[in-house]
Amino acid sequence: MSFHPPRRTLMGPGPSDVDPRISSALARPTIGHLDPAFIEFMDEIKVLLQYAFQTSNELTLPVSAPGSAGMEACFVNLLEAGDKVIVCQNGVFGGRMQENVVRCGAEAIMVQDEWGTAIDLDKVAAAIAEHPTAKVLAFVHAETSTGVESDAAALCQLAADAGMLSLVDTVTGLGGVEVAVDAWGADAVYSGTQKCLSCVPGLSPVTFSAKAAEVIQSRNTPVQSWFLDMNLVMGYWGGSTKRAYHHTAPVNTLYGLHEALTILHEEGLEASWARHRLNHEALKVGLESMGLELVVAERDRLPQLNLVSIPDGIDEAALRATLLNDYDLEIGAGLGVLAGKVWRIGLMGYSSRPTNVRLCLAALENSLIAQGLSLQGGKAVAAANAVYAA
Amino acid sequence: MSFHPPRRTLMGPGPSDVDPRISSALARPTIGHLDPAFIEFMDEIKVLLQYAFQTSNELTLPVSAPGSAGMEACFVNLLEAGDKVIVCQNGVFGGRMQENVVRCGAEAIMVQDEWGTAIDLDKVAAAIAEHPTAKVLAFVHAETSTGVESDAAALCQLAADAGMLSLVDTVTGLGGVEVAVDAWGADAVYSGTQKCLSCVPGLSPVTFSAKAAEVIQSRNTPVQSWFLDMNLVMGYWGGSTKRAYHHTAPVNTLYGLHEALTILHEEGLEASWARHRLNHEALKVGLESMGLELVVAERDRLPQLNLVSIPDGIDEAALRATLLNDYDLEIGAGLGVLAGKVWRIGLMGYSSRPTNVRLCLAALENSLIAQGLSLQGGKAVAAANAVYAA
Repeated sequence: MSFHPPRRTLMGPGPSDVDPRISSALARPTIGHLDPAFIEFMDEIKVLLQYAFQTSNELTLPVSAPGSAGMEACFVNLLEAGDKVIVCQNGVFGGRMQENVVRCGAEAIMVQDEWGTAIDLDKVAAAIAEHPTAKVLAFVHAETSTGVESDAAALCQLAADAGMLSLVDTVTGLGGVEVAVDAWGADAVYSGTQKCLSCVPGLSPVTFSAKAAEVIQSRNTPVQSWFLDMNLVMGYWGGSTKRAYHHTAPVNTLYGLHEALTILHEEGLEASWARHRLNHEALKVGLESMGLELVVAERDRLPQLNLVSIPDGIDEAALRATLLNDYDLEIGAGLGVLAGKVWRIGLMGYSSRPTNVRLCLAALENSLIAQGLSLQGGKAVAAANAVYAA
Repeated sequence: MSFHPPRRTLMGPGPSDVDPRISSALARPTIGHLDPAFIEFMDEIKVLLQYAFQTSNELTLPVSAPGSAGMEACFVNLLEAGDKVIVCQNGVFGGRMQENVVRCGAEAIMVQDEWGTAIDLDKVAAAIAEHPTAKVLAFVHAETSTGVESDAAALCQLAADAGMLSLVDTVTGLGGVEVAVDAWGADAVYSGTQKCLSCVPGLSPVTFSAKAAEVIQSRNTPVQSWFLDMNLVMGYWGGSTKRAYHHTAPVNTLYGLHEALTILHEEGLEASWARHRLNHEALKVGLESMGLELVVAERDRLPQLNLVSIPDGIDEAALRATLLNDYDLEIGAGLGVLAGKVWRIGLMGYSSRPTNVRLCLAALENSLIAQGLSLQGGKAVAAANAVYAA
């Protein structure tokens, strides 16, 4: 029997709501991955990705698999066995980076920060001083598990000053806050499609600096993944009009990404960031009106992903179930050490809209009242509305 | 600007025409990858895949990336550095297997057969006798580069008799000809979605026997790919109702695969194979009526992928361009050593229809006449029609 999914409002850590323009792009006729019309289309995707990443990097393309594969593409292409990598961890995804490093036969030097805080630049500088031969400094710009933004520009600068490559996770960042690959001087950056780009999951945009590309081209050993080997992938995604078959591109999901990037380009990067900030502000005052607290310090907050403390006495899983069953609304649970302690409320891409903010606040307020919290109904949405009216 | 692809008829080696039911499934509302409704849906996909593969293997799931990643998933999970693998090559994809083996730090012992012929069982038996400590026998059941079917049952038996694991590529096979994983005793099998399943590209169904699963669980070293590590993937796709987040599943492409497998189940495996044979037969007599020759010997032919010799004096690239530009019809070029010598005409999945056969024959006939071949117009379609009328 055909599957007909329920229609949800997606306000977790991703996937976020898919713009209807993108859904309908997915259903367009499939064409061959070597069709001349597809080759032109690929060139457009590259240009649109360069705009989103704010880069002129030639090696900019979507990896044909989800964000985790984008992460792996960055590590396996840059690393060879025996290399040293300084990995900053302030959430789940720094830990996943460590896993990737180890599986490349390389050594991970971990710099730990408390989950929910930004990466401490002094600690990183100390690690660099202690391990001057490290090849790569890897960190998460926008931590999906905590909603924290770290100072990517400063971290890339530390790496560059030490002659190291910088490797940056901005799966949750791209489109929601500034990602300035060239201005940062970042060497390898990956993202995802199902967060602030509002596209479906399944692709991972990546970009490599000229310096990183040179490292990849002059390796001593082959990249351990054939599928992710950029030396081969570039034969298909490269600038030449003659494209060599590598693997079959995920044609229709790429239609979706193209539409998503077109929408971002139409709106403009700055306008998109401003929209994410405004809806965050409205959500924030609404949450605060209910006495709920945001976990992350104001200066480190990602507007698109809000970590909220669970009030005493609230059954958090039951509340999420109520939101899902009664309101068709998904918010995220805590991950790793934050499981059971926080909710993650996403306002990413097409989900970053006043309608979603109001739905979430009203549903949360009602559900907290139903669990016994003494709140005045309607106050949260009114607080948010005041932000929009200002 | 939004991208609006031309509407093509896809009769190359894949992607094939996508069933409209599948296109519309892609556009359904995205839900979260941990939504209870999605978990039930994943269970349905597993059952449908088990049906398609004719297996009761518990470890049966779609890898979240195209067929090449499915191939890599099989190799990186089964192999550790230093292992020996016997790899049969009778086309492009045996060579890709070799690449995968080498990148695992393992040794590939190659058994070569001429492209366009089936794998020679005697050569394989000799290689096994010579290398009794090999861990895996890897081969391509349905060679996408040549349209050849090899005897998977016999090859798996040779592996089993020698205590080796069998690793099987059936990217182009599944749904078009019999794939009987349990009856063959195959240990690791991968396929693709964009061939005889008529779905969009981007996923790779895989299945592992209990013996293969045990090998994966008792490895000495971690799987070199974090993204493809079945020990982790099974925490998400496994039988438990509690699913651990591993990576974000490509939700909408999975909607498409679910619909594709539902269509296959409704039609029935045997009926699908019979349809592929019938349309192949009609195409074949039509081609022969024009004096065109099928390259592969009759007993080794895959009905869904037809290798056709290019007649003397024909500019094959120009002819393909005519088909594409004047008829919106894609057929495939030769790959590797067969480039410039053959066309590959696919009749896979939804493309395996009388309408497509007639279009292809008429377009080919007209284009050959336009290039100077002395043919009587209309004869090819008439020959095909006689097959359908019989």
